[in-house]
Amino acid sequence: MTSLQERKITKNLPSPQRFKVGMIGGGTVSSSAYAILSGDSSGNHLLSRIEVVSVAVRDLKKIRLIPQDILTDNPDSIVDDPNIEIVVELMGGTEKARELIERALRNGKHVITANKSLVARHGNELDALAARAGVSFKYEAAVAGGIPILRTLKTSLGANKLRKTMGIVNGTCNYIVTQMSDHQMSFTDALAKAQELGFAEADPTFDVGGRDAAEKNVILSKVAFGKDVDVSQVLADPELVKGITSIESRDIECARKLGFTIKLLAVSEIKPDGKLLFFVSPHLVENKHPLAAVKDAYNAIFIEGDPVGDLMLYGKGAGGGPTASAVVGDILNVVEGISSGVPVISASTLGSAEFATLSKEMHSKFYLRLLTQNCPTAFGGIMWLFGEANIAPEMVQQSITDRGLLEIVIITEAVSSQKLHNALRIISGLPYFEKTVNALPLLEAS
Amino acid sequence: MTSLQERKITKNLPSPQRFKVGMIGGGTVSSSAYAILSGDSSGNHLLSRIEVVSVAVRDLKKIRLIPQDILTDNPDSIVDDPNIEIVVELMGGTEKARELIERALRNGKHVITANKSLVARHGNELDALAARAGVSFKYEAAVAGGIPILRTLKTSLGANKLRKTMGIVNGTCNYIVTQMSDHQMSFTDALAKAQELGFAEADPTFDVGGRDAAEKNVILSKVAFGKDVDVSQVLADPELVKGITSIESRDIECARKLGFTIKLLAVSEIKPDGKLLFFVSPHLVENKHPLAAVKDAYNAIFIEGDPVGDLMLYGKGAGGGPTASAVVGDILNVVEGISSGVPVISASTLGSAEFATLSKEMHSKFYLRLLTQNCPTAFGGIMWLFGEANIAPEMVQQSITDRGLLEIVIITEAVSSQKLHNALRIISGLPYFEKTVNALPLLEAS
Repeated sequence: MTSLQERKITKNLPSPQRFKVGMIGGGTVSSSAYAILSGDSSGNHLLSRIEVVSVAVRDLKKIRLIPQDILTDNPDSIVDDPNIEIVVELMGGTEKARELIERALRNGKHVITANKSLVARHGNELDALAARAGVSFKYEAAVAGGIPILRTLKTSLGANKLRKTMGIVNGTCNYIVTQMSDHQMSFTDALAKAQELGFAEADPTFDVGGRDAAEKNVILSKVAFGKDVDVSQVLADPELVKGITSIESRDIECARKLGFTIKLLAVSEIKPDGKLLFFVSPHLVENKHPLAAVKDAYNAIFIEGDPVGDLMLYGKGAGGGPTASAVVGDILNVVEGISSGVPVISASTLGSAEFATLSKEMHSKFYLRLLTQNCPTAFGGIMWLFGEANIAPEMVQQSITDRGLLEIVIITEAVSSQKLHNALRIISGLPYFEKTVNALPLLEAS
Repeated sequence: MTSLQERKITKNLPSPQRFKVGMIGGGTVSSSAYAILSGDSSGNHLLSRIEVVSVAVRDLKKIRLIPQDILTDNPDSIVDDPNIEIVVELMGGTEKARELIERALRNGKHVITANKSLVARHGNELDALAARAGVSFKYEAAVAGGIPILRTLKTSLGANKLRKTMGIVNGTCNYIVTQMSDHQMSFTDALAKAQELGFAEADPTFDVGGRDAAEKNVILSKVAFGKDVDVSQVLADPELVKGITSIESRDIECARKLGFTIKLLAVSEIKPDGKLLFFVSPHLVENKHPLAAVKDAYNAIFIEGDPVGDLMLYGKGAGGGPTASAVVGDILNVVEGISSGVPVISASTLGSAEFATLSKEMHSKFYLRLLTQNCPTAFGGIMWLFGEANIAPEMVQQSITDRGLLEIVIITEAVSSQKLHNALRIISGLPYFEKTVNALPLLEAS
């Protein structure tokens, strides 16, 4: 923190009067946050000093648990109101929300948002803008709902060199794979159940395709490693973002027999050369690993750091209450005067993370499930090509599917992902080869 | 935070120069903390501004990784040194450490300690003293090593009404029960292995008797609920503090067959009437519950709050590195000017938690293992007395032990613990009754 900044921050320190908050958006998170801020604040001196003075909603006539007299349908009036010190953006979307947040920051207001897509796309510029304006820009709720992962990475782990984060950060996917694992459901049935229970959208593509997890991983990479990942580059690369749509009941069954559970993990790892290994993929997680015990719609982030060792935070990743807990936590943090807008981890760079150079060099054991026509030389041919590629299988099993195909399940030794994909490309050229159903990294318990 | 305090804190805000730290104690945590503070601080502007200027050790001649020229054998020189802003107490023990910390606080220094016994005994007075002096008193490392549980409770969850904390906070006990469960070891063999690996002391009484977990639970109760628990009252009451010495391989086996794992949990729960349910006891934890997946010497704290829902933090609870991560995290927190010495949760009480009135009213299902002489009426007699006490068993099984006794294993319906203990007292009066081997609460997954 430079002394210039210190001065700026001091300027923005809250007065001992009540802190005036304006909220943009009238959905469930907004209502939950309003309920906390207007509810019983006994025992919490800070909470009692916060006052929500204005809430911008789209439809003024809709019945809500927020008093009519503080509602407005004009969000501009909030970001321009000189009495409002803290703006909470919960409207969603990226364009209008970005414009409003930028204006609020330029107007010297602290800004809190739960808008993951916005922060993944523009977080770095907004961080820098907030730092220049000497105000806070906070987005704890954008990753893993109620789990205070960003603050933990920024503050509590400040003494550590962080190496890696692995997150179950999409509740929809985790609910589906849990149903498939624990109740032997098909992907389709599990998805339908998730939709019925409100754990999945009518159009689930964004979640089950891994894109939601990728956006959250962009934010995690920024906060944990100070690396700014280009979200559109990542989302355009199917090698970097794989969802759970390829996972079949048979994969779940094979994993179980091997002592593993399938989980969609968002991985971010800083390499010794400074490059960032960034990807989202289903993994086979060994049952003894704490991430394997994360069930249903719960989220968890597993962190490897030095000297803290392994650390995991587990909790509810979505829903009005947990998300509001994070939003109000950020408000309290600002009110406490704690916030400088400059994460410890990137204090020297005025809030801007540096551009991330991505690495695709992953070294891991892999689970492979391959289908070929059932001809006598198929198995030998494929094994021969793995040998040629210098990849040794740790375990191989073959069986005949209902459709009369030969199914080969392999656990490889630890190999480079590039080497493996090269080998799989060559194998896919065999005349009798049908398809690689899945090639998933293994996460073993240490 | 009162404006008076704000002024005091501002007075103590760090200058832009380097922050001078004095450490008391020369053990492994101290060495690890020194290594972080004197090591590569690139990318961490705050870390680069901290300088360890003096370390007090008992034996100046012992070879350490701390330079000779900053060593002293006089800890008083550190707490009285006007150049030192932050004192880190890592010497252990309660009397001398308390005296030094008090003097440091009175001298206007921020104090950080990892001294669990001291904080459990005198934390409340020291918190109050720090608040009066306008400085920080921090002890993240005193509970669960590298897991940033106290800061999470104090800050990130400030928007929540917390209801309950359940912690696996003693690594020795967790290592022993894990060995007993996963490797079918006896308690004695598991303890011997833990001692061999350095996970248990030569005299393990303090750990395996649950006293260490009870001290940590006193600190958790204070930070989570603002309740000051009298540690000596608690330690003197065997109903409140049970260790794992009564756990036999047979209990582990019975638990496994029922789908449960035995874990020593420290429980603290605020009741609607403001009383605190506080106890340490082995529990049968359902395998699906995230706490069941916490293995070996790992620690975890499970929190129930509103609106955040369930939250769990998992990590290494001991060892030089993880503990130093917490200690240096506290130093960075102080240096950031974040700290006010007044936890959010008790901001209105100037750092003092209020005296806790303890409740013994626990409502839970219980696992019971009883031994009686093998006479024809024994089973019926005991069942009859449970019926008289209006306690219905959900599951009962009986078998004959190697010694020819009748063993009765019962899972009760959810009952009040007092009602259960009254019934067990009456049953123990039966002429053929031998003993209640264990009566442990169940923790089911929600």
